[in-house]
Amino acid sequence: MVIEESSVVAAASNAAKFWSKFGGFHTEITSVTKVGQVHFTWTGETNKLRKVFPELKNRLIKKVKPITANMEERGGGIIDIQLLDKTEDMENYYQLFATFDTVDSMGANFINSCLEEFAAELKTFLSDSSYFTGYEKDVNIIMSILSNYTPECRVKCWVETDIKNLESLDNDLDAQAFAKKFEKAVQIATIDPFRATTHNKGIFNGIDAVILATGNDFRAIEAAGHAYASRKGKYQSLTKLSLDNNTFRYELELPLSLGTVGGLTRLHPLVVRSLELLDNPDAKQLMRITAAAGLANNFSAIKSLITKGIQIGHMKMHLLNILNTFDATSHEKSQAMAYFKNIKVSYANVADFISTLRKNRSN
Amino acid sequence: MVIEESSVVAAASNAAKFWSKFGGFHTEITSVTKVGQVHFTWTGETNKLRKVFPELKNRLIKKVKPITANMEERGGGIIDIQLLDKTEDMENYYQLFATFDTVDSMGANFINSCLEEFAAELKTFLSDSSYFTGYEKDVNIIMSILSNYTPECRVKCWVETDIKNLESLDNDLDAQAFAKKFEKAVQIATIDPFRATTHNKGIFNGIDAVILATGNDFRAIEAAGHAYASRKGKYQSLTKLSLDNNTFRYELELPLSLGTVGGLTRLHPLVVRSLELLDNPDAKQLMRITAAAGLANNFSAIKSLITKGIQIGHMKMHLLNILNTFDATSHEKSQAMAYFKNIKVSYANVADFISTLRKNRSN
Repeated sequence: MVIEESSVVAAASNAAKFWSKFGGFHTEITSVTKVGQVHFTWTGETNKLRKVFPELKNRLIKKVKPITANMEERGGGIIDIQLLDKTEDMENYYQLFATFDTVDSMGANFINSCLEEFAAELKTFLSDSSYFTGYEKDVNIIMSILSNYTPECRVKCWVETDIKNLESLDNDLDAQAFAKKFEKAVQIATIDPFRATTHNKGIFNGIDAVILATGNDFRAIEAAGHAYASRKGKYQSLTKLSLDNNTFRYELELPLSLGTVGGLTRLHPLVVRSLELLDNPDAKQLMRITAAAGLANNFSAIKSLITKGIQIGHMKMHLLNILNTFDATSHEKSQAMAYFKNIKVSYANVADFISTLRKNRSN
Repeated sequence: MVIEESSVVAAASNAAKFWSKFGGFHTEITSVTKVGQVHFTWTGETNKLRKVFPELKNRLIKKVKPITANMEERGGGIIDIQLLDKTEDMENYYQLFATFDTVDSMGANFINSCLEEFAAELKTFLSDSSYFTGYEKDVNIIMSILSNYTPECRVKCWVETDIKNLESLDNDLDAQAFAKKFEKAVQIATIDPFRATTHNKGIFNGIDAVILATGNDFRAIEAAGHAYASRKGKYQSLTKLSLDNNTFRYELELPLSLGTVGGLTRLHPLVVRSLELLDNPDAKQLMRITAAAGLANNFSAIKSLITKGIQIGHMKMHLLNILNTFDATSHEKSQAMAYFKNIKVSYANVADFISTLRKNRSN
C-alpha cells in the first residue's frame, strides 16, 4: 500500500483496527468460474446447429487437449461450453459461451488460446459435416475472446457485531444512531447512481491497492466490478447493510478474477515481495484479502462521512503535500504541523502561515 | 506509457500510425461540469422548503466566498445549486445537488470543502429561520461529498475516413468487409454485457496509462466511465460506429474529470515530466489526449480480434516474459526470438525450446 494515497492507507488501517476487536473480516468464495466467448454468425436453422452441438462440443474439447492438459493436472480446465442463440439481438448471431476454471492463474492467455482453437474447429466441423449443405457449411467468426465480466467468480466479505459495540465510533452519535445513519448512507448509494459511483469508487481505492501490488490487471477488475454493480438495470452500491437482531452486518460482494501464478506475478520483483508479505496466497485467498481491503476502505469512508466529514482527516494528511508545494524546510514543516493541530487545513491557510513565518524570519 | 503492458503500447502506436494518415483523432469537449451533493433528511412540507430555497441558495453561495474567490479568479466556481426532492425514494430524503467548474483542477478538495460549508449553513439557516417552527427547524445531514459520476464533464473522440482507406488493414478482408465486420463487433458490445465489459476494459487500457502518468485518480475515472456505460439500464459499449455515406466513423464518448493543477500533479516528479512530455496541457486538452489513447487502444484491439485474433500478437510480445521465467541468457533470448518468428508462442512451446537448447549444449 506504499504507493497509495495516505487516506487509503489510513482508511484500511482504521477499519482493520476496529474490526480486529470484533471478529475481523469474514469471507466466502462463490466460485472461480471464468468466461470466454466465440462470437459468430451462421445462416441456417438454429435447431440443426443445436442437434449437432453435443458432437461439436466433444470435438472442441478434444481439440484443445494439448492446451488444457497442464491446467487439468492443476485441477482446472474447461467447465462447460454452451451454444447461445442470440439471433433475436442480431441477425444470425450465435455464441460459443465457454466457462473455465483456471485455478491460481488469471487465465487470460489460456482462455484466449482455447477460444481461438474452438473457432478454428467450429469452421472445420461445419465445412466437413455431411449433415450441412451449401451456405450452412460456412460460418463467420466475428471474434474469440475472454470476457472480463465474471459474475460467478465472486467473493463475499462481511463484518458483523452487536450494534452496541459501535458505541465507541463517534462522540456525538450513540451506537443505535450510528447504525441507523450508516444504514441511510448505504441506502442512498442504492437509490442514487451519483452517490453509488463514489461509494463504489471508495471500495476500489482499497481493492486496487492489492491488485496493483500483486501484479493483477486493475482495468479488468474495475470493469467487472462496475458492470456487476449495474446488473439490476441501475448502477448501485456493491455493499449492503442489515441491522436485524441487534446485529450490524455490513457486506461487500463482487466479482474478482485474480491470479497468483502466471502473467507477471512471478516476474516483477515487487509483486513477488508483495505476495510474500501476504504469505503467498493462492488465488482464492487473494480474493478474500482483496475484498477485505475494499470493505475496510468503504467502511472507514462511510464512518467519516456520516460523522465528522471527510475533509478534516483528508486535509490533515494533505498538509505535508501542500507544504511541499512551498518547498518548506523540515523546520517549517514541523512548525506547520504543530500549528495546524487544531486549526483547519486549507491551501489558503497554509499559504498564509508559510508567508507569515518567512516574513517574521526575514525581519 | 513505459509502465504499461507491451500490448497497450503496441495498440496505441499501431492505431496512431494508421490514423495519422487519415486526419488523426478529432475531439470535442461537452463541458467540464463537476458534481457535489449534500444528502439530508428533513421532516416538513416540501413546498415550504422550495419556497425559501432561493434565499437559502444565496446564503450558501455567500458562505463559501472565502473558498470560491480564488477559483472564480481562475474562471471557475459554483455553477448552480439545486434542491432535489428524493422523498419518493426514501422517507424525508432531499439533496442539495451542486455543480461546479473547477477549471484545470480535478477539484475534489475544493468541492468537498464547499459542500461541508453548505451543510453547516443549511443547519444554521433552518434553525434561525422564523418561517419554520418545531421539527421543521431540524435537519439531519447524512453526508456531504463530491460525486465521481460526472456525466456532463464529457469528451467525445472520433476517427473518420472513407471506407476504401481501410483496404490496407487486413490481407483477407477488403475495406467493405473490414468495415462491416468491425460494425458487428461494436454491435455485439452494445447487445451483450459480457462483451461490453471487455470492450470497455480495452478502452481503459489506454485511458489509465495517461491517468496514472499524469497523477490523476484512475479509480474515479473508471467508476464514472463504467457507470456512464450503464446509464441506459444495460451495461453497454462506450463507442459507436457509423458507416453512412461510405465513411467509417468510430467514436468514443465518456466522462473524464481530470486535473492538471492541484493534487499531486505538481509534486510528483514523474507527473511533472509526463505533463511536460504532453506539452503541459490544460485539463481540457488532457481530456482530449486521454480519450484519444482510449479510442486508439480499442480500435487496435477490435482490428486484431476481427482479423488474425488477439493471441498471435500478444504472445509474441509475451515471449520475453516467458523467457525470463526460465532465466534465459541474452544469447538464449535472441535464439528464441529468431526461432519463434514464424512459430506459435505458447508457454509449453517455449519450455520445450529452452529445454532442447540446453540439452544440446550440455551434450
